[in-house]
Amino acid sequence: MDDLVGRFLNGERRALARIISRVENETAEGREYLRALFPHSGKTHTVGITGGPGSGKSTLTGALAAEYRRRGKRVGIVAVDPSSPFSQGAILGDRIRMQDLALDEGVYVRSMASRGALGGLAPTIDDVVSIMDAFGFDYVLIETVGAGQDEVEIAGTALTTILVNNPGTGDDIQALKAGIIEIADILVVNKADHPGADLLVSQLQALLSLAPAGARRPPILKTTAIKGEGLEKLAGSIVAHREHLVSSGGLDRARAIDARHQVLAIARAILLEKIRRSYPEAELEALVQRVAARELDPHTAAEELAGAVS
Amino acid sequence: MDDLVGRFLNGERRALARIISRVENETAEGREYLRALFPHSGKTHTVGITGGPGSGKSTLTGALAAEYRRRGKRVGIVAVDPSSPFSQGAILGDRIRMQDLALDEGVYVRSMASRGALGGLAPTIDDVVSIMDAFGFDYVLIETVGAGQDEVEIAGTALTTILVNNPGTGDDIQALKAGIIEIADILVVNKADHPGADLLVSQLQALLSLAPAGARRPPILKTTAIKGEGLEKLAGSIVAHREHLVSSGGLDRARAIDARHQVLAIARAILLEKIRRSYPEAELEALVQRVAARELDPHTAAEELAGAVS
Repeated sequence: MDDLVGRFLNGERRALARIISRVENETAEGREYLRALFPHSGKTHTVGITGGPGSGKSTLTGALAAEYRRRGKRVGIVAVDPSSPFSQGAILGDRIRMQDLALDEGVYVRSMASRGALGGLAPTIDDVVSIMDAFGFDYVLIETVGAGQDEVEIAGTALTTILVNNPGTGDDIQALKAGIIEIADILVVNKADHPGADLLVSQLQALLSLAPAGARRPPILKTTAIKGEGLEKLAGSIVAHREHLVSSGGLDRARAIDARHQVLAIARAILLEKIRRSYPEAELEALVQRVAARELDPHTAAEELAGAVS
Repeated sequence: MDDLVGRFLNGERRALARIISRVENETAEGREYLRALFPHSGKTHTVGITGGPGSGKSTLTGALAAEYRRRGKRVGIVAVDPSSPFSQGAILGDRIRMQDLALDEGVYVRSMASRGALGGLAPTIDDVVSIMDAFGFDYVLIETVGAGQDEVEIAGTALTTILVNNPGTGDDIQALKAGIIEIADILVVNKADHPGADLLVSQLQALLSLAPAGARRPPILKTTAIKGEGLEKLAGSIVAHREHLVSSGGLDRARAIDARHQVLAIARAILLEKIRRSYPEAELEALVQRVAARELDPHTAAEELAGAVS
């Protein structure tokens, strides 16, 4: 283990890949690596990129990484997929453009499933980001597919969260966006060459005007990621947001919120695992069957389960 | 309490509303009501309705409820909103059409937030459905706003899950849909009068052909909910799906899966609550600060937390 950690700290990409795999497997060994490397993390600026399907998030992520390479920065990318074997075809096509970047030594791309084996957000996403952080990337981009609450939560753990909007849908501002807009630090209207782009910008402005007084209004930027347009401004806006975080004390606050979220998520997973160990599957199944047969209500059953570990 | 339960079992709508409020508040009293009424549940056919924003889910839900009323059936509707104060305006507009239905004694509509106070899906959604079930509705429709993993999970706890698709987006089949299509028992292409409807039907057929051999292929139906078209066929398709569940033994399996999901979700919430009680906020904050400062890794911190309750 010491050898692999040494090579990791020396900047060897292969050591990075191997350690991430171990951390992803959620083994005791993986946690040892995390324990050894976690003190080296905390320098990266993390950027979450989220938005509805078809908004061009993947293209934007790739274009932003390319912009960072032009600026001499090193970039890690965590591409979070919904955990569905059925959807891989659709997502793969979207991700092919990122392959070019993967040939660049200053970029490292890793795909992950969004959900843990026991349900809930995969707690290892945060761990993988910490490992990339410890490796010394200047930026780690966390791109999520889909725009549900989970994806938003994942992207929301980043220091700067970008919400990508798509003028091509022909619908009004979607209810979904209205629900998640409040977590955005920067709003991007991608496909800015689309005829509906300016309308969408003014719709977003109207929506932001409904925010409570005193709340920070995220800037609205236009990009055409596929042509590489607007990326310089976006990268500048991310720097400005980081400076705002530093000067307002928000950086420490964001780190503390993120740490709390991580610790509670892992604690929940540990306790659930304890239930599974202390309550044999056959007994759990018998309990569940009594609930299914309406002989026992689910709260009484859950109290029995929870009682088994405490 | 006995009096309220008696009035509930007598079919008094006001008693239903009051008991749901108590259950929603997650108090010990609410759990007592659930315990008393849970044995009366298990007869309703639950129908989950999910799909992307702009797909017309709310209109479809209202139109399906109206179709059930024409058939002399009583219908409960649980409308699940993402937990965001910011988005209420957007959703409210969408829901106004349902108000007409609320004047009908045979329909009961209840809006709920999707997320619990401590994060994670609100476990009380299942409880509210159980209460409506015990009240004797023939159908309970669970409509979710948004199309993220959470909303899909909520809708997926229903016996029949309908995925509503919208031909109006101008995009290909969305990655999101590809990810969630596998939970659908019935696919609906709403806005069937839209020029893109037939194309979307054939895209969905192509997507379904990628499903593993032997898997059940959900039927694809066209509706124009706003004009009330295609609802008779949809209601018939729901009956057919229920019959399929009964004859294949899938109904008992679905009930058992749902019960397991409910029991584990509640157990997780109980354990998290125990952590919060046995670990004072000041100590939790100090622990979290050490993680934020990278002095302690999140797994070690979580083990300490989890150790406090077991």
